[in-house]
Amino acid sequence: MSKVKLMEQVVDWITEAAREVKQKLEHPLLVEEKSNRHDLVTNVDKETEKFLVEKIRAHYPNDLILGEEGLGDTISDTKGRIWLIDPIDGTLNFVKQQENFCIMIGIFEDNEPVLGFIYDVIKNEFAYGGKETGVFLNGEPIKKIENIGLKDGLIGINSGMFAKNFSNAQNIGFEAVGIRMLGCAGLDFLNILRGKQNGYISHLAPWDFAAGVALGIPLGLKCSKFDGSDYSILDGRQYFVVATEKTYQDIFK
Amino acid sequence: MSKVKLMEQVVDWITEAAREVKQKLEHPLLVEEKSNRHDLVTNVDKETEKFLVEKIRAHYPNDLILGEEGLGDTISDTKGRIWLIDPIDGTLNFVKQQENFCIMIGIFEDNEPVLGFIYDVIKNEFAYGGKETGVFLNGEPIKKIENIGLKDGLIGINSGMFAKNFSNAQNIGFEAVGIRMLGCAGLDFLNILRGKQNGYISHLAPWDFAAGVALGIPLGLKCSKFDGSDYSILDGRQYFVVATEKTYQDIFK
Repeated sequence: MSKVKLMEQVVDWITEAAREVKQKLEHPLLVEEKSNRHDLVTNVDKETEKFLVEKIRAHYPNDLILGEEGLGDTISDTKGRIWLIDPIDGTLNFVKQQENFCIMIGIFEDNEPVLGFIYDVIKNEFAYGGKETGVFLNGEPIKKIENIGLKDGLIGINSGMFAKNFSNAQNIGFEAVGIRMLGCAGLDFLNILRGKQNGYISHLAPWDFAAGVALGIPLGLKCSKFDGSDYSILDGRQYFVVATEKTYQDIFK
Repeated sequence: MSKVKLMEQVVDWITEAAREVKQKLEHPLLVEEKSNRHDLVTNVDKETEKFLVEKIRAHYPNDLILGEEGLGDTISDTKGRIWLIDPIDGTLNFVKQQENFCIMIGIFEDNEPVLGFIYDVIKNEFAYGGKETGVFLNGEPIKKIENIGLKDGLIGINSGMFAKNFSNAQNIGFEAVGIRMLGCAGLDFLNILRGKQNGYISHLAPWDFAAGVALGIPLGLKCSKFDGSDYSILDGRQYFVVATEKTYQDIFK
């Protein structure tokens, strides 16, 4: 199956999932704490993951799935095709604001990011595509991201890393023209893809960065662990940076 | 003239100004640094202030004006009617993102906030009104803001205050469920008015908080300097807090 066909199929699934999510927002959410009171999950996170996992299982039974809400598989190596799902990225925003969240899927093949999908459901901004297909925003190709340096743009930084000045996060932030905290990794990636922000530094699980990596690398963005080493979809939560090439160089100066 | 009529008149002016701003975004901006490279001004800030100042001068020649871009008056006391204008609040976002900015006007009479206007031009979210008129969002009355405590909501904090843990800003932030940095005071106020955020702590000029105070106080929000003393439209930039009553109490615990 061509990557274009696969992309179109997943766009359809996510569009359908998003429609459901919007409808569910008209009813009270069932909210539970996961690891702590800053880490929530709702019925909509779980139901959206279930919907997407069922689609993938039905069409691609041999593929593996890593999902934030645990309906996927246990992944021990990067061989074959792996789907990384964050059904509602930015769950705190979802619960407290009913906006500023997104649905994300990243697809890796033999450890290479091949397709990514980030859908800001409420703003109706949908980025999707990858290396072979090109990258699109609501149907229009994203041709190029301006390669601006750290001091010429806005940077997103995780609040905990910024507070502790972890690996100079404060100095990096104040070198940028401004610091933003959005509470949703997918929105930071979307802003970078849309040329509205030049970098993002955070502590991310693989489902938080898989889609953004697949979308960003074909457009020249640099992605790695925050120490400069390779990110890994096997490593669990990791300090992560994505930026334009110039900003990335400035960060490591 | 009734406050309702005045409100409707200013809504019309700002709506017209916003239409102009959107058109100007289709052309290159002329960007200059003001005090430093984090403090920008564009032709659109200046032209929008000029437009609004001219409207006020033509209709209310005896009123005084305090405008961010300096086209207003020098204000030495709070007697009479004073208009506080931020023609483009969030100029960094305006320049770097062409979104996430707003037009703000606050009207004070004998030191009392009487009307406020905050218009997120791109999202088309317009809050306006005051004590006498009631407060509206895009024509619908805002009846009540849920009085949630610090730990149950999202709080906006200025990046410099947060980095330095100024007056325990970090501890306050981590007590909240999450910290947000939007780069636009008006958007923080709008989020609080819309029940999407429960507080905001920053270092603000009078034109940054005048509109939000006029809109928020009738709905039960608490506004003061960050040391708990009264804010003042004469004091220049000041450490400022706005929050639901419960969150405000939690902040000062």
